[in-house]
Amino acid sequence: MKSIMITSIAALLLFSCGKPTVDTKAEGEKLMQISRDWSKAASSGDVEKIVSYWSDDAVLIQPGMPMIKGRKEIRQMVEGMIKTPGFKISWEPQSAEVSETGDLAYLVEKSQTTMTDSTGKSITQHTNGVTVWKKQADGSWKNVVDIGTPVQ
Amino acid sequence: MKSIMITSIAALLLFSCGKPTVDTKAEGEKLMQISRDWSKAASSGDVEKIVSYWSDDAVLIQPGMPMIKGRKEIRQMVEGMIKTPGFKISWEPQSAEVSETGDLAYLVEKSQTTMTDSTGKSITQHTNGVTVWKKQADGSWKNVVDIGTPVQ
Repeated sequence: MKSIMITSIAALLLFSCGKPTVDTKAEGEKLMQISRDWSKAASSGDVEKIVSYWSDDAVLIQPGMPMIKGRKEIRQMVEGMIKTPGFKISWEPQSAEVSETGDLAYLVEKSQTTMTDSTGKSITQHTNGVTVWKKQADGSWKNVVDIGTPVQ
Repeated sequence: MKSIMITSIAALLLFSCGKPTVDTKAEGEKLMQISRDWSKAASSGDVEKIVSYWSDDAVLIQPGMPMIKGRKEIRQMVEGMIKTPGFKISWEPQSAEVSETGDLAYLVEKSQTTMTDSTGKSITQHTNGVTVWKKQADGSWKNVVDIGTPVQ
């Protein structure tokens, strides 16, 4: 009887258990490195690689544009973007915050976008941004929201 | 011996237990209502109430401005903002996403900001935005990141 009771308690504990917490600092640093790798890929012209960082249902919110939803629409935007004369983009994550169980996170970032105007002059725009990330079923982090706003 | 072993297993299960998960949909709806309440408060002129929605270390990222960090700096911005002639701001959350254990969340939002220009004409700017929220020790949600970008 006693052993049945103890087994029941053990089973109850097992099934009432929540999600294990993660080392949020280490996970945040990992995510900042993913962001830096993505920034390097952004100037590579490799559309598949660039687009692979977004989730299927990601939302891209950029200045002067309606929201772009889903990887298909984002891919079209990227294809157009890399054809823009003199186009270059890069960013650097400033800080990371990860949820207790490592399923949701965000980065604060600073970006530079350069393109050539109609007179051949190079123009650089600085933006502040936030990227939100969600841990996928396969354990990878994917970007679910990508928002930037002009500094000036 | 057997009962010690079972007790040890039960203890191990207890201490290896993680955080309980929450009803993320219900928590997301609660957060959208907090955002709507905040939007109503934003036109009230009640600085203390408006500022109370941000965490002590919140980051405000608005178009054409450097990042504003911390509630003290945000309060100064709000004080200036509500003195702006014809100033009105309101927003509506579009969607919410909450982490498994309800400690971190974000909303996608659409905002309207109206002010009066030097000729007395009313100007409305539409922005898309993201607000990131963190559950505090007292169980309340506070805004930790508030970013908006112009639609046009």
